[in-house]
Amino acid sequence: MKIPPVKGTRDFYPPDMAVHNYIVDGWKKASLRNGFEEYDGPIFEYLKMFQIKSGDEIVEQLFSLTDRGGRDLALRPEMTPTLARMVNQRINSLPRPIKWFSVPRLFRAERPQKGRLREFFQWNIDIIGTDDVLADAEIIFTTIDYLRQVGLTPDDIKVKMSSRRLLAAVLKKIGIAEANFDSMYALLDKRNKLPQETFKELLAEKVPDKQMADTINQFMELESVSNVERMFGHDELVEEAFNELAMVHRHLLENMKVGEYCKFDPSIVRGLAYYTGVVFEVHAEGSELRAICGGGRYDNLLKEFGGPEITGTGMGMGDCVLEILLREKGLLDRKVEGPDLDYFVACVPGITFDDQGGMVKSTVEDEVVRLTTSQLRTKGFRAAFSYKANAGLSKQFKEASAQNAKKCVIIGEEFKNKKLTIKDMDTGKQELVDYDEFLSWLDSAKGI
Amino acid sequence: MKIPPVKGTRDFYPPDMAVHNYIVDGWKKASLRNGFEEYDGPIFEYLKMFQIKSGDEIVEQLFSLTDRGGRDLALRPEMTPTLARMVNQRINSLPRPIKWFSVPRLFRAERPQKGRLREFFQWNIDIIGTDDVLADAEIIFTTIDYLRQVGLTPDDIKVKMSSRRLLAAVLKKIGIAEANFDSMYALLDKRNKLPQETFKELLAEKVPDKQMADTINQFMELESVSNVERMFGHDELVEEAFNELAMVHRHLLENMKVGEYCKFDPSIVRGLAYYTGVVFEVHAEGSELRAICGGGRYDNLLKEFGGPEITGTGMGMGDCVLEILLREKGLLDRKVEGPDLDYFVACVPGITFDDQGGMVKSTVEDEVVRLTTSQLRTKGFRAAFSYKANAGLSKQFKEASAQNAKKCVIIGEEFKNKKLTIKDMDTGKQELVDYDEFLSWLDSAKGI
Repeated sequence: MKIPPVKGTRDFYPPDMAVHNYIVDGWKKASLRNGFEEYDGPIFEYLKMFQIKSGDEIVEQLFSLTDRGGRDLALRPEMTPTLARMVNQRINSLPRPIKWFSVPRLFRAERPQKGRLREFFQWNIDIIGTDDVLADAEIIFTTIDYLRQVGLTPDDIKVKMSSRRLLAAVLKKIGIAEANFDSMYALLDKRNKLPQETFKELLAEKVPDKQMADTINQFMELESVSNVERMFGHDELVEEAFNELAMVHRHLLENMKVGEYCKFDPSIVRGLAYYTGVVFEVHAEGSELRAICGGGRYDNLLKEFGGPEITGTGMGMGDCVLEILLREKGLLDRKVEGPDLDYFVACVPGITFDDQGGMVKSTVEDEVVRLTTSQLRTKGFRAAFSYKANAGLSKQFKEASAQNAKKCVIIGEEFKNKKLTIKDMDTGKQELVDYDEFLSWLDSAKGI
Repeated sequence: MKIPPVKGTRDFYPPDMAVHNYIVDGWKKASLRNGFEEYDGPIFEYLKMFQIKSGDEIVEQLFSLTDRGGRDLALRPEMTPTLARMVNQRINSLPRPIKWFSVPRLFRAERPQKGRLREFFQWNIDIIGTDDVLADAEIIFTTIDYLRQVGLTPDDIKVKMSSRRLLAAVLKKIGIAEANFDSMYALLDKRNKLPQETFKELLAEKVPDKQMADTINQFMELESVSNVERMFGHDELVEEAFNELAMVHRHLLENMKVGEYCKFDPSIVRGLAYYTGVVFEVHAEGSELRAICGGGRYDNLLKEFGGPEITGTGMGMGDCVLEILLREKGLLDRKVEGPDLDYFVACVPGITFDDQGGMVKSTVEDEVVRLTTSQLRTKGFRAAFSYKANAGLSKQFKEASAQNAKKCVIIGEEFKNKKLTIKDMDTGKQELVDYDEFLSWLDSAKGI
């Protein structure tokens, strides 16, 4: 019976897995050098946990299941609710600020399309327990630190920054009722994703006053932070939010030296309901791709999940859009390594050896297994041999090449005098070495 | 609203994650040095895929879910069906033997108990496409190679080996009908898990002939392979199976040099329905713990999943029992490292610096962020600083110690003359260094 994989999931064959590991290892290293500690949680949680604060789109796309006890569960569509739960559970014993990262597997029951799958991986970094703008800057710096390290330049990508607090102050100044803010955010977040006309119609429905709607559009098109003040005159709330954003930008520019990656873009809103402060998205320049990642400050999240009022700021980056971009820019092929072998042990087939006393015989195939396992691998080297050694040396060399072996060890007639041939697979050079000296050298080269 | 985690799942706080990563990294390294390539598949597959060959116990414990299209899916309870599906999909292009490993997250809806959770990780290694007994030996060697590397000795654990083929030959010789073999395997697998009396009753129900039942029990109690022949006299099928097992053992003993870990134990049957040849389990000596891992040869698995008749052999090791054993033996605490920082950058708070022209001022806190991010992290070092620098130096040192920083860089008054103090956190020794020289040294020490 032949059964296909489920649509929207991926099979990671070894070459795909190498790319996946390259991405995830990079995320982990960037997190660690920026001082984040790793955590993880379960793949499923109680369904209601994801209904609290994740926003309608995510709730509609939940993979839900019922366990034998009749409990309603769901596969996690994002990591933040689990993070909030875990932090709340130990809020009194965790030293603050909490700087954590995770690379969870996430699930969304949406229509699979370019850059969007039903099962994906997401890099999450969060700093919880400080309202210092430095934390917002550090989240953005860590994001850039990774993207820069994989080879993306300021010509390739831009961090577009804005502030929910600034947007709230602007909406208030314009005269939008605070009760409508949440649904306004969800609508304004779609501005860059919908055709211009469609968005204008939706906005007109929600904000019938044409002048108010125009002002919102004008604000979202501002290209410089300084224009905000010019547009709205003196307003304390606008000014506070504006200063906060300017301070984050100053850190990125003057202290963290990544200003060339960053720009102000008031059209950045973020879809999720829980953001309250600085928000940002990273976009590929001149590309139709969705955002590579996004994040921002959330003030009330822990409280919503039954915890205290503690503020946090974080970022999430999926693997799908990122991989498409890296491939488009040619940044994957050269960098992703297959499974390089240190040694491939080959033999001239059909030889038999007497041991010293002449009592026990071993075949050359035995010696191949012996050297590979009880010597090379046991000493920590990556080593392999052929299951078809009797097919001859040239077939064995082909297998060695296919597995990117750096060196071949060849056991032949000279092994009767305790000698081995070692072939450098790059240069093709061969060298006769003493067996015992080779073993001693292995010990000193790597140890276990 | 406070929501608990689901029973039988785990939260990995950073110290738990460090243990988890230590286990998984060890699995991956052992796989790579033994020549296996990594793969992975989706967390869920079509439900019917797990109903083909996994055995009743697993089918009963499936977490099933229905997607929006009404398709019946299930969270994977084991990796082998996915492996069979993936190999079948590319059977003509994959070079053989296929030597693959994976560390999947798996799910079983069973009652949580010691060493058994509803969500766990499992190391899988498989060699597909060769019936060479060397492959069976290599699977067992790789298993031991890992267990030995984490510190488990032949006094701690034993690989108990038997053969489904040998058991089948014995059952046939005794006179059990072949149609009953599958259910016999499931029953005999419970022999070591049930109270002796309960097992005897179940066996008597299934095999009413007392003499036949006694012979089965006697066989399963044999302590030496050579006794099999003594017990059954000359029988071609028994002999063939016996010789195969002896050849695997010879490789482990004479070529791979891990014989001290291995012993013959005909009571090892394995619960899963698909095994056909050599089978094994690793058990902790003198312990009530379940098997640490198990595996064996499967001849018909790919065919059952719609593929050709190709044989394979493999092993699966869960993380739960292993972690309990490592903890009991004291093998975790010393070896699991927290997140060591290369540098913690501290400062004497409240200082302001003029730049050369005296036009731009920077605070000591700015310089801390600048050195940490745009220098240390950018050059690939793990570095952090305090969000509460104004609390003073000794509090900053405490934070540095809590994060296992190897060195502290202190920015104080001497920075006005471009000097830094570097404190070795192990010895407590402090040294005044030139700022520019320090930066050059960083470049040469690691590069990006």
